[in-house]
Amino acid sequence: MTSEDAAPTYDDVVVAAGRLEGIVHRTPLTTCSTIDQWVGCRLLLKCEHLQRVGAFKFRGATNAVLALSDDDATNGVAAHSSGNHAAALALAARTRGVPAHVVMPTSAPVAKRAATAGYGAEIIDCAPTLEAREATLAEVLERTGAVEIHPYDHPHVIAGAGTASLELLEQAAECGIDPLDAVVVPVGGGGLASGTVLGVRGRHGTDVAVFAAEPTGADDAARSLAEGHLIPSLAPDTVCDGLLTSLSPRTFSILSSGLERVVTVTDDEVLEAMRLLWERAKMVVEPSGAIAVAATRRLVAGGEVSPDATVGVILSGGNVDLDALPF
Amino acid sequence: MTSEDAAPTYDDVVVAAGRLEGIVHRTPLTTCSTIDQWVGCRLLLKCEHLQRVGAFKFRGATNAVLALSDDDATNGVAAHSSGNHAAALALAARTRGVPAHVVMPTSAPVAKRAATAGYGAEIIDCAPTLEAREATLAEVLERTGAVEIHPYDHPHVIAGAGTASLELLEQAAECGIDPLDAVVVPVGGGGLASGTVLGVRGRHGTDVAVFAAEPTGADDAARSLAEGHLIPSLAPDTVCDGLLTSLSPRTFSILSSGLERVVTVTDDEVLEAMRLLWERAKMVVEPSGAIAVAATRRLVAGGEVSPDATVGVILSGGNVDLDALPF
Repeated sequence: MTSEDAAPTYDDVVVAAGRLEGIVHRTPLTTCSTIDQWVGCRLLLKCEHLQRVGAFKFRGATNAVLALSDDDATNGVAAHSSGNHAAALALAARTRGVPAHVVMPTSAPVAKRAATAGYGAEIIDCAPTLEAREATLAEVLERTGAVEIHPYDHPHVIAGAGTASLELLEQAAECGIDPLDAVVVPVGGGGLASGTVLGVRGRHGTDVAVFAAEPTGADDAARSLAEGHLIPSLAPDTVCDGLLTSLSPRTFSILSSGLERVVTVTDDEVLEAMRLLWERAKMVVEPSGAIAVAATRRLVAGGEVSPDATVGVILSGGNVDLDALPF
Repeated sequence: MTSEDAAPTYDDVVVAAGRLEGIVHRTPLTTCSTIDQWVGCRLLLKCEHLQRVGAFKFRGATNAVLALSDDDATNGVAAHSSGNHAAALALAARTRGVPAHVVMPTSAPVAKRAATAGYGAEIIDCAPTLEAREATLAEVLERTGAVEIHPYDHPHVIAGAGTASLELLEQAAECGIDPLDAVVVPVGGGGLASGTVLGVRGRHGTDVAVFAAEPTGADDAARSLAEGHLIPSLAPDTVCDGLLTSLSPRTFSILSSGLERVVTVTDDEVLEAMRLLWERAKMVVEPSGAIAVAATRRLVAGGEVSPDATVGVILSGGNVDLDALPF
C-alpha cells in the first residue's frame, strides 16, 4: 500500500478501482450534438456530476478513508474544505462508520454546507482565509485524534480520482472508441488531473493526450508548468469556485511529467459551455465541471485537437447554489 | 389510419411507436433516492426532458407529420403555440422536408422561440390572446395551404404522446417492475394524459392506475372531470407555463373514461419538486415537467399510493429560460 508521503502510481489507481467497486457510481458517458457543434469535435462526456455527492471527489475521499487501517480510522477523519471534498469526506466516513470533522469557511456555499451536514459530519466554522482554515484544522486534529484527508495532496485521493478516467476509457471502448484521441479535465489543486494522468498514461502510454483546463483568473497551474516551478494561487478570481486552490509539490510533479499542457479559458467561455450543458443537454453542471468543454473548444480552434477527434471530457461536478446562479 | 375527427385507440399508439422508431429518442428511465424519500415511494423517472427538442411533444408532432399523405404534406404544416409544440412541429416538419409555419404570441419564452426558429420554421408573431392566435393561424392556413397540427386535440398527436408510456412500461419491465403500480403524468390540454391512458389501459387494462397532475392555478381538468362536463381554463395562474390550456372534447372524453383522477398541487410544491430534480438529480426539468413528482407525493400522503409502490412518472420537458428562473 502506498504510504502517505509516496507518489501514487497507475497500480494505485487500479487498486482504487477495485476498492471502490459497488460503492461509487459507474457514472454514465453521454453525448450532445449541439455541444459537439460548438466545440468543433466529438465529445464523450463523463458525467461525474451524477457521482454520489454530485462530484468526482467522492472517489478520492472514499478511497482514502477505506485505505485506512482500523486503528487509524478509529478516531475518524478530518479536512478543511469549502466545497465538494467536504461532502465527499462526510459520506465516505459515514460509509465506513467513522466520524468526519470538516472545517468550513463561513463563505462556503449553502448547498455544500447543507450536504456535508446532511451526511452527518461535524462542521467547524472558521474565517474564510487559508491561515484560519489550517489553524482550525490543526486544533480539530489535536482535539479529536482524527486523520487528515487532504482534498488533493494525498496519494489515495489522487488514485481514487484517477478511477474516473479508467471508467471513461473503458466506456469509450465499449462504444467502439479505443482509444480516445485525448482526455480533458479541470485542474484546481491537481488531484483529478494527476489521477487522470496516471490512469491514461498507465493504460495507453502517450497515445492519448491529457490536457487540463484552468480559468484565466486562477491560472497558477498553467504558469507553474510553463515556468517549471510551483507558483501558488494568490488572488484567484473566477466563477469556477472548485478551482481556486494551488497545486501541491506532489500534483505538480505528476502533472509536469505527464500532462500535455494546461489550457486556460475565460469565465465567459466557461459560462457559455455551462449554459449549453444546462439548456441543451439538460444537465446541471457547475462552472468547474463545465470548463473542460470550453477548453476543448480552444484546443480544436488552435489546431491541437482535430475536428475528426473524439475527446473524453470529465464533467467533474454539479453542485451549484440555485439561489446564486452565474446567469 | 385514424381520421382527423376520430378518437385515437391503443392500436394507434402501437402504430405510432413503430412509425417513430429511430426518429424519437428512447429516453432513459432513471431513479433518485433523495426524491424517493421526499415523495414517499419509489419513482421511475421517464426522462422526456431528454427527448429531441427537450420535450415529449416531439413524439406527437412527428407522428402527425409523418402520418400525412404526400399530397396533404406538400404545403407544410402549421400551428399556434407558445411553447414546446412550436419547436417540436418545426423539427418534425424539417425531418419530413416540408415547411412549418408557427404562430407564436409575443409573450412566448425566448428560448422556445429561438429553438423554433433554429429548426427552420417560419414564425408569425401575434398578440398573446387566444383570439389573436386563432385568427392569425386562420390567415396563415389560408395563405399557405398548410395543414394544421393541433398541439393536443389531434388523434395522431395523442397517439404519438402515448408512445412515451409504452416505453416507460417496457423499461420498467426490463428493470423487473412488471407492471408498475401507477403512472403519473402532467395534464394541460390533455394530449400526454390521453395518450398515456390509451397506452397503459391497452397494455395492462385497469391493473395500472393512471393519474394526472395539474396546478391548482389552472385546475380546469380537475374541475371538468369532477363535474362531468368541460370547464375551460379562463384565467390560469401558475408557474407551469406548459399547462395553461384547456381540455378539448376529445381529450376530455378519453380522460373521463380511463383516468383515475386529476391531482392538483400548488406552485410551491411544483417548485420544491423541481428544485430537488435540479439539485439532487442534476436534471434540468421545467415546472410542467416536475409537477407529476409533486402529485405523486400527494398521492402517497393521502394513502392512494402505497409507500411500497413503484410509480412511473413522466418528466415531460426541460425547456426553461435560464435568465428567468422561478427560483
